Amino acid sequence: MKLALNNKKIFKRLPRHIGIIPDGNRRWALSNGFTKEKGYSYGIDPGFKLYEHCLELGIEEMTFYGFTQDNTKRPAEQRKAFQKACVDAVMKLADRDADLLVVGNNKSPLFPKELKSYVVRKKFGRGLMRINFLVNYGWQWDLSTAFKLVTGEDNSSKHGLLNTIASRDISRLDLIIRWGGRRRLSGFLPVQSIYADFYVVDEMWPDYRIDHLYDALHWYEEQDITLGG
Amino acid sequence: MKLALNNKKIFKRLPRHIGIIPDGNRRWALSNGFTKEKGYSYGIDPGFKLYEHCLELGIEEMTFYGFTQDNTKRPAEQRKAFQKACVDAVMKLADRDADLLVVGNNKSPLFPKELKSYVVRKKFGRGLMRINFLVNYGWQWDLSTAFKLVTGEDNSSKHGLLNTIASRDISRLDLIIRWGGRRRLSGFLPVQSIYADFYVVDEMWPDYRIDHLYDALHWYEEQDITLGG
Repeated sequence: MKLALNNKKIFKRLPRHIGIIPDGNRRWALSNGFTKEKGYSYGIDPGFKLYEHCLELGIEEMTFYGFTQDNTKRPAEQRKAFQKACVDAVMKLADRDADLLVVGNNKSPLFPKELKSYVVRKKFGRGLMRINFLVNYGWQWDLSTAFKLVTGEDNSSKHGLLNTIASRDISRLDLIIRWGGRRRLSGFLPVQSIYADFYVVDEMWPDYRIDHLYDALHWYEEQDITLGG
Repeated sequence: MKLALNNKKIFKRLPRHIGIIPDGNRRWALSNGFTKEKGYSYGIDPGFKLYEHCLELGIEEMTFYGFTQDNTKRPAEQRKAFQKACVDAVMKLADRDADLLVVGNNKSPLFPKELKSYVVRKKFGRGLMRINFLVNYGWQWDLSTAFKLVTGEDNSSKHGLLNTIASRDISRLDLIIRWGGRRRLSGFLPVQSIYADFYVVDEMWPDYRIDHLYDALHWYEEQDITLGG
């Protein structure tokens, strides 16, 4: 933990919760002579490197955009490849010191059955970091769940939105980092993203390097926090 | 209208609907020797320039972020200044060829009474462009309205989210342009922003120039449109 303290000093201020949009696997695959679906398996190791780097810094919570309901409209060989990559990533995370939660529509056959036991948050090892993994996630699914809960319990609007959406166990995001150059959220946790600062890395996700994270954090420490005020 | 056709040709592809976050009025005021609240009145003319430039290009719909419920927590002299700037802007828009709608919580005393008659869409002049103006808007207010509607009518989730939120008369955004350098949405129409491309101009809003718009549109035409797929 000495390294953590040393590293922490280089930043004036760190985000509590970082969202990760690991985009560009297919473009990376094509430009490296593979077919598109081969890209996803090259996205697992970068995720663990990034997790280790954030753990060293003492980041408290991370959310990874695994795959979405929108994504499942892609060709079957791609769908199978990203489903497998997510299963492998979650299984590997369960071997680490993570306080782990998988969030997504697990009533659907597109939700990998191997991950059904992870939809309730569970501590693995020392549970050092809260990690959320979005699997078969959909923004409409997420927000629509709120309607049903409110409807079922109480017609007044006493429940805060953050307490009733399907992803209610995921906290507000401070910083979102997207790889692959696109400047959009693509349905990533619309409620938790409301006040988040958004940093884009032009390199593709499989080419992750620690300086991407450090550049994002150095940019982040210069931002003000107003929460819309 | 000849100019419109000529200008259109310089872009391969234009957004149908552009969202505008005109940030930086207070920072602009301070750096120009004014007190903070003086900045807002300097944000009206830039808005009309931008509207004219978009109209020439044939942009079909624009949404301006006027002020939010979050913003109303600011000191009273600032609040009064941005309320007045919004009233002035809407009144001036009603003199143009706009198909105009004001969206925000008009049950609150913080909603300017002069704008109450604009919360139903109305055509002015030739109504050439759909313009939405967010006034005393809040993302929680927007989404919470959906709950109530669904609750009141039908417990099943047959209603699409876009059809039940308070801002349901505002369509999906293609491009959001934010002035003032911040890279975040700050509560701007979370549902309509889901798939929007997000472009940030570092200059403050009162310093708007046409090349900001053109740079954003040239960037936009190079983006792909996947809608999350």
